[in-house]
Amino acid sequence: MRYELYYWPGIQGRGEFVRLALEAADADYVDVARLSGRGKGVDAMLSLMNDGKLDHPPFAPPFLKTGKLVISHTANILDYLGPRLDLVPKAEHSRIWAHQLQLLVTDFLVEVHDTHHPVALALYYRDQKTEAKRRTRYFLSDRVPKYLDYFEDVCAANRGRMVGRALSYVDLSMFQLIEGLRYAFPKTTRKLEPRWPRLIALRDRVADVPRVAAYLASKRRIPFNENGIFRHYPELESR
Amino acid sequence: MRYELYYWPGIQGRGEFVRLALEAADADYVDVARLSGRGKGVDAMLSLMNDGKLDHPPFAPPFLKTGKLVISHTANILDYLGPRLDLVPKAEHSRIWAHQLQLLVTDFLVEVHDTHHPVALALYYRDQKTEAKRRTRYFLSDRVPKYLDYFEDVCAANRGRMVGRALSYVDLSMFQLIEGLRYAFPKTTRKLEPRWPRLIALRDRVADVPRVAAYLASKRRIPFNENGIFRHYPELESR
Repeated sequence: MRYELYYWPGIQGRGEFVRLALEAADADYVDVARLSGRGKGVDAMLSLMNDGKLDHPPFAPPFLKTGKLVISHTANILDYLGPRLDLVPKAEHSRIWAHQLQLLVTDFLVEVHDTHHPVALALYYRDQKTEAKRRTRYFLSDRVPKYLDYFEDVCAANRGRMVGRALSYVDLSMFQLIEGLRYAFPKTTRKLEPRWPRLIALRDRVADVPRVAAYLASKRRIPFNENGIFRHYPELESR
Repeated sequence: MRYELYYWPGIQGRGEFVRLALEAADADYVDVARLSGRGKGVDAMLSLMNDGKLDHPPFAPPFLKTGKLVISHTANILDYLGPRLDLVPKAEHSRIWAHQLQLLVTDFLVEVHDTHHPVALALYYRDQKTEAKRRTRYFLSDRVPKYLDYFEDVCAANRGRMVGRALSYVDLSMFQLIEGLRYAFPKTTRKLEPRWPRLIALRDRVADVPRVAAYLASKRRIPFNENGIFRHYPELESR
């Protein structure tokens, strides 16, 4: 196989942005940590991460192995895969722009994660619930509109796509963001969606791309759950 | 001039990582928002950001203008400047690796920022001090060692530099991280520094690079202060 993806097997998480790109492009890849057998599974992922002989050891999953190259950080992986999977226009200025948008997605995901973990990764959610409620209130009132309104403007200015004229990895990421927000914060998202008609239309078109639709209907698509980045804790959404 | 940097004029912040690269390479640039006059200053920055006619509007400073290109997001700007300023090796795999390290710096900076703003950007520090204390405790005990130990390992494996054999923008960023930690969390940093002998040696060598030393001694280097990312609030460090 051409690409080996390494990511936590039980969650969509950050890896999902890479999975969507690989699936939409029908790339030849394996999702190593989700397989069993020799050289597969989470153990294989961890031992590759901790392999002292690696030139460029990843700090954290996801990472992608292709030949001898090991690339980590979601946006970095997508920047590498984009031109190879035909998921970004070829011109340098378009690639820089797509990457910039993807880096904003990265920033936004940190903020999503910190709604349920505002104090420490090392603590359980239940041990930081008070802070989580307070943080989520501001996240939903200030940050979600700030990011999504910006993405909506970009999408509107570019005739319904994020970058270029064809499907890009940024379009796929917008799909995933909307799905995640709908899952984690259904009431707020329902209320805010009318602000983002272009993004919602883009989300619908992405869901209808045959390879994406096939992926979403398959067992390869892990359902959202409360170990991932987008978590549905109803108490965080209610005032 | 060749490059126009746009960033908040009163803080080092994220812009400092770009300033250090431009200064170390003796690049032909202007720090637009710090100048006064027609087409200069913060107003010029804000009006460029909000210029509806821009193809690729930035979400937030810093951004770099060069010719017609406007590039935002610190790591993205450095990825663009790196080869042009000779601050990264030319090979694609080295550039990907340098960028990956810089993206970790980005992640780390979010965590530094959130020590004093764990609830909301929209609130003053004093209105989230309780949460800030709790978050900082975990940040200093878990996160600082996790990131810095990793950077130390990278630096050790590469004979005292982060990437390649010559000064890179990642070396400059390591200098800035150490400076920031020393400013914001002097007690903890003093205690932890012996874990990072290679990084500290690298910091010292960067500080001695003549152009860097000249920059640091100049008025162009804004002092750390409590509006930036690294803030010294003594109460956050004491148990």
